[in-house]
Amino acid sequence: MKAAQRLLEYAAGSGVSACFANPGTSEMHLVAALDSAPAIRAILCLFEGVATGAADGFGRMARQPALTLLHLGPGLANGIANLHNAYRARTPILSLIGEHATYHRANNPPLASDIAALARPVSAWLKTAETPADLIVLAAEGLEAARRNGPAALILPADVAWSDAEPRAAGPPPTAAPGDQWEQSVDAVAKTLGPDAALLLGGRILTPRASAAAQRIAEKTGAKVLVETFPARIARGGDSAPLKRLPYLTEMAVGLLADVKSLVLAGAADPVAFFALPGRATRLSPENVRTIEYVRAGSNPEAALEALAEAVGAKDDCGRADSPAALPNTDTAIDPYGFAQVIAATLPEHAIVSDESNTLGLYAFDAAAGAPAHDWLTLTGGAIGQGLPLATGAAVACPDRRVLALEADGSALYTIQSLWTQAREGLNVTNVILNNGAYAILRLEMMRVGITEQTQTAANLFDLRRPSIDFTALAAGFGVPATRVSTLHELAQALRRSFATPGPALIEVVFA
Amino acid sequence: MKAAQRLLEYAAGSGVSACFANPGTSEMHLVAALDSAPAIRAILCLFEGVATGAADGFGRMARQPALTLLHLGPGLANGIANLHNAYRARTPILSLIGEHATYHRANNPPLASDIAALARPVSAWLKTAETPADLIVLAAEGLEAARRNGPAALILPADVAWSDAEPRAAGPPPTAAPGDQWEQSVDAVAKTLGPDAALLLGGRILTPRASAAAQRIAEKTGAKVLVETFPARIARGGDSAPLKRLPYLTEMAVGLLADVKSLVLAGAADPVAFFALPGRATRLSPENVRTIEYVRAGSNPEAALEALAEAVGAKDDCGRADSPAALPNTDTAIDPYGFAQVIAATLPEHAIVSDESNTLGLYAFDAAAGAPAHDWLTLTGGAIGQGLPLATGAAVACPDRRVLALEADGSALYTIQSLWTQAREGLNVTNVILNNGAYAILRLEMMRVGITEQTQTAANLFDLRRPSIDFTALAAGFGVPATRVSTLHELAQALRRSFATPGPALIEVVFA
Repeated sequence: MKAAQRLLEYAAGSGVSACFANPGTSEMHLVAALDSAPAIRAILCLFEGVATGAADGFGRMARQPALTLLHLGPGLANGIANLHNAYRARTPILSLIGEHATYHRANNPPLASDIAALARPVSAWLKTAETPADLIVLAAEGLEAARRNGPAALILPADVAWSDAEPRAAGPPPTAAPGDQWEQSVDAVAKTLGPDAALLLGGRILTPRASAAAQRIAEKTGAKVLVETFPARIARGGDSAPLKRLPYLTEMAVGLLADVKSLVLAGAADPVAFFALPGRATRLSPENVRTIEYVRAGSNPEAALEALAEAVGAKDDCGRADSPAALPNTDTAIDPYGFAQVIAATLPEHAIVSDESNTLGLYAFDAAAGAPAHDWLTLTGGAIGQGLPLATGAAVACPDRRVLALEADGSALYTIQSLWTQAREGLNVTNVILNNGAYAILRLEMMRVGITEQTQTAANLFDLRRPSIDFTALAAGFGVPATRVSTLHELAQALRRSFATPGPALIEVVFA
Repeated sequence: MKAAQRLLEYAAGSGVSACFANPGTSEMHLVAALDSAPAIRAILCLFEGVATGAADGFGRMARQPALTLLHLGPGLANGIANLHNAYRARTPILSLIGEHATYHRANNPPLASDIAALARPVSAWLKTAETPADLIVLAAEGLEAARRNGPAALILPADVAWSDAEPRAAGPPPTAAPGDQWEQSVDAVAKTLGPDAALLLGGRILTPRASAAAQRIAEKTGAKVLVETFPARIARGGDSAPLKRLPYLTEMAVGLLADVKSLVLAGAADPVAFFALPGRATRLSPENVRTIEYVRAGSNPEAALEALAEAVGAKDDCGRADSPAALPNTDTAIDPYGFAQVIAATLPEHAIVSDESNTLGLYAFDAAAGAPAHDWLTLTGGAIGQGLPLATGAAVACPDRRVLALEADGSALYTIQSLWTQAREGLNVTNVILNNGAYAILRLEMMRVGITEQTQTAANLFDLRRPSIDFTALAAGFGVPATRVSTLHELAQALRRSFATPGPALIEVVFA
């Protein structure tokens, strides 16, 4: 019995059911050991950024950690961008990172590097298994840390993995997860709520009950309710309250919060600008605002919001959905507003939306408030290339739900290899690529930093049309059926066809 | 005048002529400033791993640093794997990594992370420009460090880039580059050379003169001459001595060095196993060998080898190339040996070969000794996904030479986005994809670590055939003309067609 086997058997016994992998030589004993843990579905990804992003999508939906299996420092490095997003979302993940044998590290072979240094910025927990004796104890610690705080990383030297020594057993896991953290008393917070207050929601998951409680509080007290700009996961549509998100653009967010005297944070961080801009503030709330951290950033605010609703005397449910979405005039060319309406009108019940649509998808979130109940996942850490992997992992976690990836062209090209894993695993993902042949957001950002005239180099560096990228050909190369649409009618048809057909599809949306 | 402009003007004045970029909001002033430095060619890459790998290929060929332009921690992270390879090759590169404005970092916005922690493991030099005053001095230091020691990284906060303050001027660059480092006297080393000695060559570049000198030493003294397993760049073919490389497989390397009593290192590191294997040594030379570091690892050994040749009385040139390569029987299916012969027989003069062909390209290097003069670049750090980007950058550095990328299917899929940059820039790259539908090397490695029976999970995780990947479709998606070949005759035809046609092409080679 190899230590690697013990490790994977332990993980399987602790509820781990998926491993997103791109292994190398130093991980061979882990690969072999996966046969001893048939409860863990091993899923090959062609690139580590797909593996870590898929683990993020899996964890956000399953609320259980998946494993990733990464090859030494460079394999980890390829997965860091999406681990960054997962770290910001506090998604439970346990990454197993292979390392050279303990006695070989000092030889500094070609693939050696400082793995811990690379992992630390994106890890809520990080340890190296220096001996097989500690392996199971560390795995238990890592899984527990992942469940509580987000991505954990266990560095595993090859000779520890292949050892026949028997690891010590881990103690029993904590019997109950710690309760959500309330930083302030409900009554104190309740007193601050009124028309000059705002309530900002966040956390790993915003449930329908959390949103409903917040909506009741708003109606009762006159306080504004907003969701953090990039929520990890939020239930929407159906009976859910149609809450708005704090806008991405500093200028708009500052305007929206301008009159707020008290800002109550319920699972969200104190809001700051995504980027500093010359001459503009970087904090989004007004200078003299009283900021109250009610529920710690990243914690689930559901129970705290229900208690708060009760404290302000808004106990009764007033669940009020948007009016059902209707199809727009569908024989016209595709523009962002029409696009959003078509998405909202076609979205199937219990869909999961992985949203990395950037500029062109701007209206989709609000429009879909009128769609049937669904979950919406966003780009929590701003590291692009998240959307297709996230959709892939969400589809593994929820095989009975349709996943819709709304994906900007430039971002799609970071981790386009995701399509192959979707095809291989027969995942129910509809990949919608919003193709405007540009890094359009950078044209906007350039103006925002004060450069009003687009330079020649910028025009070159933001342009994706020389040559145009054919996403239907890329999909074909990876084994995913694809179609290109250029009217709202074609888009609606293609969406409905994919929603009714098991397995993945790609729809390339050409914007006018 | 913005500090960013001063920076790029300084770089252009110091001989920088290329910038491989994937910018974001925090780099906008650098993008705008590129217009002020028209001597720097700005080249857009769809993914940072392409940018850093291209900078590596550029630097190995131009022997001058290119810039990379990377967006914050995640943008850097995406480029780390290929920076790792460049770090091992000691390629001159100066990475400009955008950072949040100095006063915004403490706000911990979504895209914030510890950039320096991520950069350190792959940087020979690393600093953050905390003020505009220091910017030019730091750029000068970074460029000098890159030229001497390999990849340098300058972290550039947005407010430093957009500042109007005038940076201090840098002092004049050191007038002469430091000479190559000889660690031992020539005469002492000369005395150790004999039939029981071996000379192991390495360094940033192995020139025809270095190889010729080594070959003369071998003929005069009876010493073995070998090239390190993964040389950064070696001149081959034409009149160059047909030197052999130390084999990748520990078992073979140990056998080859078994009788060696003295090992002279000339630019190469003391050879160690790529991976530790259960029960096997990790040092490749025999236990009681006398190892002499003649030229420090990574330094250019040309002058030292010529001095050594003179010291052993082997001054006269005996340049002796292999017999010219001939086309094999070409109506047969493609196997690794026939493949190597076709490459050797068709390679045009002054070609540059970017070799990430792994298992299937095993014979190509030796076979090409009989081809016209060319340069051969290898996977120095073992981080896969290098070959296509490296070829891209080499083609930018040497527009009048044909670049041939020999690329394994699994590795190609890490950075397949390279094809688009090749199409956009009209680069003369022939991309040969060796498609056996598998991570074949991992099947071999699994046996080598002692797992003789391939498990079900391993069979799944090493297989790239469900579904098969269509590289010609991927190439079409990125705008590169492509063809698929399955006989040696078709391969030879496709190679000759591409070598005669300006711009990139992709040839998918299906193995029997």
